[in-house]
Amino acid sequence: METLLRRCQIRSQIVRECIAEFLGLYIALIGSGAAAQVVTSRGTHGDYLTIQLGSALGAVFGIFVARGVSGAHLNPVYSLSLCVLGRHPWKKLPLYSLSHLVGAFLGAATVYLQYYDAIQTFSGGELLVAGPNATAGIFCSYPADHLSFWGGLVDQVVATALFLLCCVALEDQRNGPLPDGLHPVLVGALILTMGVSMGSNCGFPLNPARDLGPRLFTFVAGWGEEVFKAGGGWWWVPIVAPFVGGLLGTLTYELLIEAHHQTTPQSPQQEQEAVRNPLHNGLKTLNTM
Amino acid sequence: METLLRRCQIRSQIVRECIAEFLGLYIALIGSGAAAQVVTSRGTHGDYLTIQLGSALGAVFGIFVARGVSGAHLNPVYSLSLCVLGRHPWKKLPLYSLSHLVGAFLGAATVYLQYYDAIQTFSGGELLVAGPNATAGIFCSYPADHLSFWGGLVDQVVATALFLLCCVALEDQRNGPLPDGLHPVLVGALILTMGVSMGSNCGFPLNPARDLGPRLFTFVAGWGEEVFKAGGGWWWVPIVAPFVGGLLGTLTYELLIEAHHQTTPQSPQQEQEAVRNPLHNGLKTLNTM
Amino acid sequence: METLLRRCQIRSQIVRECIAEFLGLYIALIGSGAAAQVVTSRGTHGDYLTIQLGSALGAVFGIFVARGVSGAHLNPVYSLSLCVLGRHPWKKLPLYSLSHLVGAFLGAATVYLQYYDAIQTFSGGELLVAGPNATAGIFCSYPADHLSFWGGLVDQVVATALFLLCCVALEDQRNGPLPDGLHPVLVGALILTMGVSMGSNCGFPLNPARDLGPRLFTFVAGWGEEVFKAGGGWWWVPIVAPFVGGLLGTLTYELLIEAHHQTTPQSPQQEQEAVRNPLHNGLKTLNTM
Amino acid sequence: METLLRRCQIRSQIVRECIAEFLGLYIALIGSGAAAQVVTSRGTHGDYLTIQLGSALGAVFGIFVARGVSGAHLNPVYSLSLCVLGRHPWKKLPLYSLSHLVGAFLGAATVYLQYYDAIQTFSGGELLVAGPNATAGIFCSYPADHLSFWGGLVDQVVATALFLLCCVALEDQRNGPLPDGLHPVLVGALILTMGVSMGSNCGFPLNPARDLGPRLFTFVAGWGEEVFKAGGGWWWVPIVAPFVGGLLGTLTYELLIEAHHQTTPQSPQQEQEAVRNPLHNGLKTLNTM
Repeated sequence: METLLRRCQIRSQIVRECIAEFLGLYIALIGSGAAAQVVTSRGTHGDYLTIQLGSALGAVFGIFVARGVSGAHLNPVYSLSLCVLGRHPWKKLPLYSLSHLVGAFLGAATVYLQYYDAIQTFSGGELLVAGPNATAGIFCSYPADHLSFWGGLVDQVVATALFLLCCVALEDQRNGPLPDGLHPVLVGALILTMGVSMGSNCGFPLNPARDLGPRLFTFVAGWGEEVFKAGGGWWWVPIVAPFVGGLLGTLTYELLIEAHHQTTPQSPQQEQEAVRNPLHNGLKTLNTM
Repeated sequence: METLLRRCQIRSQIVRECIAEFLGLYIALIGSGAAAQVVTSRGTHGDYLTIQLGSALGAVFGIFVARGVSGAHLNPVYSLSLCVLGRHPWKKLPLYSLSHLVGAFLGAATVYLQYYDAIQTFSGGELLVAGPNATAGIFCSYPADHLSFWGGLVDQVVATALFLLCCVALEDQRNGPLPDGLHPVLVGALILTMGVSMGSNCGFPLNPARDLGPRLFTFVAGWGEEVFKAGGGWWWVPIVAPFVGGLLGTLTYELLIEAHHQTTPQSPQQEQEAVRNPLHNGLKTLNTM
Repeated sequence: METLLRRCQIRSQIVRECIAEFLGLYIALIGSGAAAQVVTSRGTHGDYLTIQLGSALGAVFGIFVARGVSGAHLNPVYSLSLCVLGRHPWKKLPLYSLSHLVGAFLGAATVYLQYYDAIQTFSGGELLVAGPNATAGIFCSYPADHLSFWGGLVDQVVATALFLLCCVALEDQRNGPLPDGLHPVLVGALILTMGVSMGSNCGFPLNPARDLGPRLFTFVAGWGEEVFKAGGGWWWVPIVAPFVGGLLGTLTYELLIEAHHQTTPQSPQQEQEAVRNPLHNGLKTLNTM
Repeated sequence: METLLRRCQIRSQIVRECIAEFLGLYIALIGSGAAAQVVTSRGTHGDYLTIQLGSALGAVFGIFVARGVSGAHLNPVYSLSLCVLGRHPWKKLPLYSLSHLVGAFLGAATVYLQYYDAIQTFSGGELLVAGPNATAGIFCSYPADHLSFWGGLVDQVVATALFLLCCVALEDQRNGPLPDGLHPVLVGALILTMGVSMGSNCGFPLNPARDLGPRLFTFVAGWGEEVFKAGGGWWWVPIVAPFVGGLLGTLTYELLIEAHHQTTPQSPQQEQEAVRNPLHNGLKTLNTM
């Protein structure tokens, strides 16, 4: 088996990374199943909290699947932030983003496959974007009735800013170490925080690929062009606003916290090694004793 | 006491492992109590989420009980995956599976014992598989009304594929280390994810032994042959489909992620030692300094 | 301040341990506040799950308060189990149990103090044990209407057996190491598991001191002798049954798992040291290289 | 980018710390969004538990943002406790408290910005402190109808005492070590415990800055002076009572547990180092071998 698998080995680093990012976001889409379940069971199999738990936990396992290979960005906004900070090569950004998009598209397709019977029964065979039997909201975000255009824009900028600020803080080893294996769990907890605190305006997309991929899927799968028209052409807000918010949050953290750390930043590689193997530092000490 | 216990010591490795697997799944069945509680209290003592928490947390402690002795497979599908990957001897597969079946059977019996009064009062003494006073669903899976045969098959193949894919990812030390003691918790979180995202079609069995064992118990305990007839002879789907899905998920992870790790895989024993005692690596470094 | 505190230092080990056990269970009683809140708000400030979260998390912090001084037994049944296994001196058992009782009594008193206004408003000033305005159930366990005497006895024996089995498993270092600091959290998770799975028959007391202490408090605080008469003289069941179940669970784990570990058990002190300082083992290895 | 950021570097330690405390509490205010969401959606987007999860998780990420720079007090009561124990300089107390106040004020402003449309729609444009369309309770605490003045005072003294007692216990390294990275999570769990157990009387403020800052914001943002008049002039209770309770809890822990530890307390710096780098101790041992 090992031999067989080794034959399939891909040596190109970037291809491996793109596959990991694709698979990670695909897995993260499990979360849409939680929404499908609550919607189609009319609330008997879960509630608002289980939908948020599904999103958060789906992301946790998406990260666990991809973290060792590509760092598990799973979000073009996060990739962009790292590029701006000089911690990720710009040329990988479009490839990563495309992988995210494909992962989210296929993830949504899998959820539809799994809930095909339930969605058909619930909707009476009509795939609708709005109304009491709407099912498009299972897959991607639509604004609530009370939300104005500017309100939606502000919501997504603010939410993604806070999200990225916390993401960057969790990555900042000079702010405090984090046991390996706890990081993915904390990112999940952060997504849960967003879900319970910032979900009622427009469902906290936060992630352009995770929103556009499933929207494209629903477009081709039968919900039609209404998925782009609904909410006054809402679809581009969760694509553009998160990038603006993400940069805002990242720079806020850099300016208010990370810029002022007294110790010199190590090169990413050293830093990573120091974290992975805390013994090293100790042994250097030992060596000089 | 220690002396007394040492007299009872069993030296056969396989017998010890089977006992651990049996006890682990027996403990994991605590989760059925959560369903019993919600059903018989008609929703006053819990809701859909507490049922899923019961399943997930029961599995966590089942793993803690068995992990040091047998690795806590607690699922024939997982054992099969490890066999296919060459990480578990094929000859142990039937023995492990049988232990799982016995553990699940006795676990269900214990839940019935504990909730005997509640089930009798709730059902008016009639043990039914369907209808508003049905109680068979406490113990094993039945398909929802909206689910077609193919829908159920697809649901279980997809769900178990995603489940095993994540399980194998969590075990993959080259994808990223995991602190000892966090692994069982994460498997529990994975089961919770499945429960909140993939539970409304047929209750996410995912585990042939955990479904068949309690079904056999309800068969002999008074629910009768209806437990096999219900849902158009549903009973064999959660036995066969998880094996298919499990292999699919395992191979997907192997092909998309694990096959491409650059470092040579260590022998299982070395790998395990490296994880248990991360110091070793450091000291080897020290030695060569 | 340090100097001032050092003047108050108690040098007697057993007195320190009893204070820690007392304070630990006192803190754990925070959980009763969750029940008080749900009952007196008639369900607007929480639900069944928040009551269980209160119990579980209260216990977690009770353990964190006491763990370094006395090991945080917080339950006479657990103390008894350790005595039977020869890991705790028998002569400390009555002192520990008394500390638990006092802690639970004063904890209940604090909850009553904090919810005095709410309980008076809710109950119209009448402190009742049964009926729609009953408030005694906030503090200690009463059997559900459907529960027979034998049913209650079996429930508590089974539940405490499973509880102690898992507790002893978590302590068994040869079954697998656990990061320091995770142990209290897992015991809390175990209590949550019990709550969501075994709470609807009689509220899963599991702990004689935690049940009797608050019962004594309600007896003197105005609920009167009905707290002992209710449920056909239920009060002694959650005192006696947990001891029986606890021994059963402990011995089951010892016989099925711990007795068969191949390595010689180390003395408790060595074992503890090995866990606290995993480096030692490594350095011994180094020394002999 | 790194170079650009280094130009902005602030060298004053106290300014950096105040910025971190400000940002930390600002982030923690995410939690108010959870309340805004439940109130304005009239319970369709969350329930009592999601509000508490929002508060607790918001605090977790507030701590992660500030912990490496200032220790993440995020609460003037906690700063005061550390000052009394001689672990924090008194002269920093007013600056920290002011930073908390500003962080909470701006955090509330951000929540209002994000939920502006929702609050306007829900309240019909009238910003009210009491009644069915009240929205002031989203931002700071108001007493429940059943609560007397003394009841409120007792509630806050007791709740903050228990809160600080547990906070100090989690910090006490001689009571038992805690993996780095778990501490913020446990403080969040503690806040959740408080929320599910002690929230129905007056919403468990526990933190004078987190209560006064948002109250000041609602005062200037249109709710008017009613925010200070409501509940019989309630506003000063959550400012004064937590300080009393916090000292009570801190001293209780010191007198009952910490004063009696046998080992000499190390200087804070040594202690911290020992925790951060457990290897050191081992290497000292090695050195003397």
